[in-house]
Amino acid sequence: MRPDQPQPQPGQSPEQASEHSDNRRPGDHMTAAEFRAAGHAAVDWIADYLSTLEQRPVLSTVEPGAIAAQLPAHPPQRGEPFSAMLADLERVVMPGITHWQHPSFFAYFNSNASGPSILGELLSAGIGVQGMLWATSPACTEVETVMMDWLLELLGLPDIFRSTGPGGGVIQDTASSATLCAILAARERATGWQTDRTGVDRALCVYASDQTHSSIEKAVRIAGLGKDQLRAVASDARGALDPTALAAAIAADRAAGRTPCAVIATVGTTSSHAIDPLRAVGEICRSEGVWLHVDGAHAGTAAVCPEYRWIHDGLELADSYCTNPHKWMFTNFDCDAFWVRDRAALVRTLSVLPEYLRNAATASGEVIDYRDWHIPLGRRFRALKLWFVMRHYGVEGLRRHIGQHIALAQRFAEWVAAHDAFELAVPAPLNLVCFRHVGGDAVNQRIVETLNASGALYLTHTKIAGRYTLRLCVGGTYTEARHVEAAWQAITAAAAG
Amino acid sequence: MRPDQPQPQPGQSPEQASEHSDNRRPGDHMTAAEFRAAGHAAVDWIADYLSTLEQRPVLSTVEPGAIAAQLPAHPPQRGEPFSAMLADLERVVMPGITHWQHPSFFAYFNSNASGPSILGELLSAGIGVQGMLWATSPACTEVETVMMDWLLELLGLPDIFRSTGPGGGVIQDTASSATLCAILAARERATGWQTDRTGVDRALCVYASDQTHSSIEKAVRIAGLGKDQLRAVASDARGALDPTALAAAIAADRAAGRTPCAVIATVGTTSSHAIDPLRAVGEICRSEGVWLHVDGAHAGTAAVCPEYRWIHDGLELADSYCTNPHKWMFTNFDCDAFWVRDRAALVRTLSVLPEYLRNAATASGEVIDYRDWHIPLGRRFRALKLWFVMRHYGVEGLRRHIGQHIALAQRFAEWVAAHDAFELAVPAPLNLVCFRHVGGDAVNQRIVETLNASGALYLTHTKIAGRYTLRLCVGGTYTEARHVEAAWQAITAAAAG
Repeated sequence: MRPDQPQPQPGQSPEQASEHSDNRRPGDHMTAAEFRAAGHAAVDWIADYLSTLEQRPVLSTVEPGAIAAQLPAHPPQRGEPFSAMLADLERVVMPGITHWQHPSFFAYFNSNASGPSILGELLSAGIGVQGMLWATSPACTEVETVMMDWLLELLGLPDIFRSTGPGGGVIQDTASSATLCAILAARERATGWQTDRTGVDRALCVYASDQTHSSIEKAVRIAGLGKDQLRAVASDARGALDPTALAAAIAADRAAGRTPCAVIATVGTTSSHAIDPLRAVGEICRSEGVWLHVDGAHAGTAAVCPEYRWIHDGLELADSYCTNPHKWMFTNFDCDAFWVRDRAALVRTLSVLPEYLRNAATASGEVIDYRDWHIPLGRRFRALKLWFVMRHYGVEGLRRHIGQHIALAQRFAEWVAAHDAFELAVPAPLNLVCFRHVGGDAVNQRIVETLNASGALYLTHTKIAGRYTLRLCVGGTYTEARHVEAAWQAITAAAAG
Repeated sequence: MRPDQPQPQPGQSPEQASEHSDNRRPGDHMTAAEFRAAGHAAVDWIADYLSTLEQRPVLSTVEPGAIAAQLPAHPPQRGEPFSAMLADLERVVMPGITHWQHPSFFAYFNSNASGPSILGELLSAGIGVQGMLWATSPACTEVETVMMDWLLELLGLPDIFRSTGPGGGVIQDTASSATLCAILAARERATGWQTDRTGVDRALCVYASDQTHSSIEKAVRIAGLGKDQLRAVASDARGALDPTALAAAIAADRAAGRTPCAVIATVGTTSSHAIDPLRAVGEICRSEGVWLHVDGAHAGTAAVCPEYRWIHDGLELADSYCTNPHKWMFTNFDCDAFWVRDRAALVRTLSVLPEYLRNAATASGEVIDYRDWHIPLGRRFRALKLWFVMRHYGVEGLRRHIGQHIALAQRFAEWVAAHDAFELAVPAPLNLVCFRHVGGDAVNQRIVETLNASGALYLTHTKIAGRYTLRLCVGGTYTEARHVEAAWQAITAAAAG
């Protein structure tokens, strides 16, 4: 980037340098001055966007193809000014945006963000390092290792995952990818790393509750195990895995000559926030020698508050665990935190070392090369935003905000329970409330559709015990009591209307 | 985010609102004013960083553990100001950074970035949408689909990949992941989608040259095929796959009852930038019914210049293709562009649809849900930076910059060829020059180590025909003639020294 004040090159007068800098053509790289101006405008756009977000409808209601139709059919021949892009962001893109940062976004699980996180992402893009190996930017690796240890402490997770022992943590893009890595390591450990060499040659079984996330089936299929080998273990009325059914399923597979390989337990299922009994499941896995992966993608963040750490009771029996700061911990997507008990097993499963990546640091064995901890080779400096989030908020601040989200959801659950026409579908221990109108599926479906079309808030649904059920998740960065109150008023009004 | 000018809430006087806004605690969410100030400071930091980058040593020389040792052992209890983080970025992080954006970074392949791309990433983080489904933010999907069609046109790729037909493109994180998706789709197509259900149950063979990227072996292992089923097909002296050897390998496997499933061809190998003969390979694949995936991760960008489009000759015979704008096209990591001929085959391979993701748009079949095009479920709005890059530079600007990189590399290759003590290891058709000192491996290794320790530039090595070979890649955003000239002077001086 050319500096703001043009510097004369050797043999060039300051006037020539200045003239050169005025002699700009479309499509030249931005100068520092241009970057500053455009960057300040982009920052201001975000500040305006986030502080006026409430005035926009939460859910986009465009028809398929409407946004594409407004884009030119061809890339421009000549470069355009940044102001044109910022204008089109508002004019073309915004009508097609469902505003995930809106304080009345209660759908799915949140994917919240925050000022420090956005700026961590910005600085990571600006520095633009590629952290595939320790050697390609030592700080990118070492800050990540330390941040994963900080996060472990913040959440009160077991020391088995700490990088100072045989375990350790890594940032993955998503829980889907983390789970895939866990299943791959489990597959290999169960076959003495022979599958890796000769291919899947027997029925390797994976177990999860019938409430598990769709990414488990996807991972089992990707790993070449076949979805027929995924056992949907019965869950209780709450949606939590039944350990007796798990033990029976494992025994049946062993009796039939199949090889149990991994169990995936969930802390906070997507459908109903059920929490699998980790201790009972973990004891089965340890006695059976089966890899236990625990998926706490959304609910794990609750453990920043010591009073909710019971959700992880028994986690020290697991082989791996993941949770997503990019869901509920103010860290913009993507940032999944994945820990393993035995990093050597993971690295052995995913490592390939061609000549062009050989280097002295890797050969020394003293450093972590995170490329061997996940599917992609390249990786950006995602630890920066996690560092900024933990420093901006501090342990105290995170506990305050997460505790407030849970308190708001609990208050909402009380309103539901006290209302004649509504009921809780299952208990709501954390920040997700699953509830329904007593009038049946058609009424509930109509309520969701009415509310979402209004633009005032966004809810999604699930089915629990076969019944159409509304889900309200309180996890937005800017969600306050008044938004939850307004949601409840809108829901009761829609039911009455 | 609270607006800059505190707005009185209902029942609250302006004075109360103002008082409230002054009553800030550590760890509160940033206000809009705080975000503006911190954001402007971050933008200015990047502008300063990029315009003074040349003054820093390219390659970090810290010892393992040196950066981690400077970080506190525990997360802070109380929130800290943004200025503290920016100061630590400089003090703690920068000594451990290898500067990938430095104009004298000639190592590996570049991972370049640019002003418009950095700001596209910033805006994407600020908007913070999650584009897993069309319905979760229609613009996130539709802008991506159109950008992939723009990029196809920019690179002159075959129309079979255009989204208006049965094909289409998607942004993946890396070529490693894109290749994995291609191999999975190939695995399923070869077995009538039965592997997906019952698991790998036969020898499914994958073919690539002995010069192929390490990610191919990784993908074959992840997919459960086993690396024994990856055939390293002989390459010629240049490093390009030998089609006769490929046909023989396929025939041998068929004769032995194995199932050929995919061929991976490369446009620009990592080691020596060899270009596999796509037409000859493609004809074999079509007649054998084998999935052809083409990996043009780095070199593909050369095709923005019509005079280099010969690198893709025969690509219309392929089933899938990927190239990485995040390597050489001024788009910061991550942004791999992946196209398929038959999107239905890819989606069938990767789709799972649980109740909580069902929605009317998906059910209509009229929209693209990109979650079914890759491994992760969640995804951020990466098309924004690609849009900004193509608009900022325009077709003309991109051709000018890419053409200049290639011209500089060609000039460097001429200097090597004309020098008594140096030789080209292989011809250099594009922007990667593989060369060596005639004095043997030890001399070449000493040259690399001397140069990299100097901080003045960064080169990496490979082995070609068993001999230690230096690689110089010209692809940095800010790399100009004077940097390449200085590199050549430093190389000859190190050889003489």
